[in-house]
Amino acid sequence: MNPTISLDTSNLTEIVESELAKLDFNHKPYQLYEPISYILSLGGKRMRPVLLLMACDMFGKSIEDAMPQALAIEIFHNFTLVHDDIMDQAPKRRNQLTVHTKWNENTGILSGDVMLVCAYQQLCKSENQYLAQLLHLFNKTAIEVCEGQQFDMNYETENNITIPEYIRMIELKTAVLLGCSLQTGSIIAGATTEDQTNMYEFGRNIGIAFQLQDDLLDVFGDPDKFGKQIGGDIISNKKTYLYIKALELADANQKTKLNQLFNTDEVDNLEKIQAVTNIYNSLSVKDSTKSEMKKYFNTAMSFFNKIDLSEEQKMPLREFADKLMVRES
Amino acid sequence: MNPTISLDTSNLTEIVESELAKLDFNHKPYQLYEPISYILSLGGKRMRPVLLLMACDMFGKSIEDAMPQALAIEIFHNFTLVHDDIMDQAPKRRNQLTVHTKWNENTGILSGDVMLVCAYQQLCKSENQYLAQLLHLFNKTAIEVCEGQQFDMNYETENNITIPEYIRMIELKTAVLLGCSLQTGSIIAGATTEDQTNMYEFGRNIGIAFQLQDDLLDVFGDPDKFGKQIGGDIISNKKTYLYIKALELADANQKTKLNQLFNTDEVDNLEKIQAVTNIYNSLSVKDSTKSEMKKYFNTAMSFFNKIDLSEEQKMPLREFADKLMVRES
Repeated sequence: MNPTISLDTSNLTEIVESELAKLDFNHKPYQLYEPISYILSLGGKRMRPVLLLMACDMFGKSIEDAMPQALAIEIFHNFTLVHDDIMDQAPKRRNQLTVHTKWNENTGILSGDVMLVCAYQQLCKSENQYLAQLLHLFNKTAIEVCEGQQFDMNYETENNITIPEYIRMIELKTAVLLGCSLQTGSIIAGATTEDQTNMYEFGRNIGIAFQLQDDLLDVFGDPDKFGKQIGGDIISNKKTYLYIKALELADANQKTKLNQLFNTDEVDNLEKIQAVTNIYNSLSVKDSTKSEMKKYFNTAMSFFNKIDLSEEQKMPLREFADKLMVRES
Repeated sequence: MNPTISLDTSNLTEIVESELAKLDFNHKPYQLYEPISYILSLGGKRMRPVLLLMACDMFGKSIEDAMPQALAIEIFHNFTLVHDDIMDQAPKRRNQLTVHTKWNENTGILSGDVMLVCAYQQLCKSENQYLAQLLHLFNKTAIEVCEGQQFDMNYETENNITIPEYIRMIELKTAVLLGCSLQTGSIIAGATTEDQTNMYEFGRNIGIAFQLQDDLLDVFGDPDKFGKQIGGDIISNKKTYLYIKALELADANQKTKLNQLFNTDEVDNLEKIQAVTNIYNSLSVKDSTKSEMKKYFNTAMSFFNKIDLSEEQKMPLREFADKLMVRES
C-alpha cells in the first residue's frame, strides 16, 4: 500500500472539521459545554491536526489510527485560545466573539479547563504501547505552551527583549505544538526514534519560521489576502521580531522615535503604521526578517530531508510546508 | 509482609507534605511557577493523597509506588482551588491570600493550567500496565469536578434546587475525587476490579456524607473547633443542604422569611445567622441533615465491608473514615 496515493491531503482540513463536529458536547451542564462546541466550530486552518495526520500517513499508517490524537491537539490548541483570549482581553477571534465575551470570564475559565481534560481523553484513545510516549510528549509540550504565553505576557511590560528571548518565546508559544503534532503522528505510525526527532525538529523550526512570517505579513502583507488587519501588531504596540530587530539596528533618533510610537495610543492609527513602517523600511527590517525566516525554514527542511522515506512518500508534507511559506509577503 | 503494621498512617499527611515540598517549581518563568509553590505550601489535611496512599497500603503495596499519583491528585485538587477562587472571587484561602489576589487573575488562570498538566505528569509516572486505567479514571473524574463547579455556580442564581440536584452537585464537585483517590491507590496495588469499585463507592459516599457534615458544621459546629466562621454559608447566601431541606419543610410564612433572608445582604450578619438558625431549629433540619449524612456514611461502609481483606488490613482506613465523621457537630 502506498499511503501517499490513497490520501487526498487537500481534503484533510474537511475531514478534521467533520470529525470535530461529531464530538458530542450536547449535554448538561449546557453552560459548560456550549462554549466548547462554539469555539471548535469557528473553523481555522486546522493546521496542527492536519500535520499530525499527514505525518501518520507519511509513515504508512491509516489516518483513522491517529484521528483521536489529531482531535486532541486541536482541542488543546483551542483551549489555549480560550484562556489566552481572557488574559489578552481579546473581544474577537476569527471575526466572532471570543468565549469570555459571548458568555463571561468564568465560563471561559471553566469551559477551557474541561477542554484541556477532553484533549487528554482523546489523546488516551491510543494503543497501550504508545500511550506513555504520547503523554510524555504532550505533557511537556502543554507546559511549554503555557510558559510561552507567560513570557509573551511578561514581554508586554518589559523593555530590551533580545532576539533570542523573542525567538524562544515564539518557539514555546507556537512552534513546539507543531513539532508535537508531527511527532505524535509519527509515533502512532511506528516511525523510528530518529525519524520522530526529525519530524519534531522539522515542525519546531517550521513553526518559528511560520510565526516570523506572521510578524512580517502583519506589516508587509497584502491587505486582500492577509486574514487580519495590516498593522494590527503596530497599533497594539506588540513587540514582534520586526520591532526588536529595528530597535537593534536603529540609531539614537530612530530608537527614540520607535519607543515613543510604541508607548502611545494617541497617534492616529494610520499615521502610526506609516511612521513605524518607514523606520522598518529605512532599516531593511523586512529583509532581516525574511532572512531569519529562511534560516529556520532551511533548518526545518534539513531535518525533513534526513527522514528515511522515499521522495514520493514525503511529497505531500513537503508541498504542505512549501505552501505554508509562500503566503503573500 | 503485613502492610498495616509497617505503615504509620498518622504520619501520612507529613509524608505527603514533604513530597510536595520536594517538587521543583523554582525555574523560569517565575511568574508562572511561584504561585504553584505558594498554593501547594498552604497546607490542609491532604485528605485525598492520604486516602490514595492508605488504599495502596491496604492492598499490600508500598506507598512509594503510589506517591506520584498521590501528588497528582493533590496538585489537581489545588488547581481546582486556584480556578474556583477566581470564579468565586474569593480573597482568602486557608487564611492566606488566594493566588489571583496575591498576583492577578491572569496568573491564576495560567498557573492553574500548568498545575493541571503537572498533575498529569505525576499521574503518568506509572507502570505501563496501569497507565490507561489510571488515566481513564482521572479524566472522567476531572471532567466531573468541573461539571460540579458549573452546577454550583448555576445554583447561585437558580431557585427551587431540589435535594437530588444538590446531592448530585456535591457528588461531582467533592465526592468523586475521593472515590477516584481511593480507586487509584487500589489500581496501583493490583486490587480486583470488584474491590476497586468497592473502594470508589466507599469514597464517593463518604465524600457526600463529608460535604453534608460540612454544611451542618457551618451552622451547628463548635466555633473553637470548626476551621471556618460559623454561619459563613448563611452570610454568603449559600444554598446548602440545610437551606434546601428547610425550604422543603417550611410553611408559607417560613418560606417567605427564608427567601427574604437569603436574598439580602442588608440584615446584620449575626441577626441573620440567628434568624436562619431559628427556622432551621423549628424544622429540625439538623436531624434531617444528620440522618441524610448517616445514610451516605452507612452506604459507604457497606461497600467497605464487602472488600475482600482481613479486618486487620482494613483497620487503618476504617478508623480514618470514622474520624472524618466525628468532627465536632
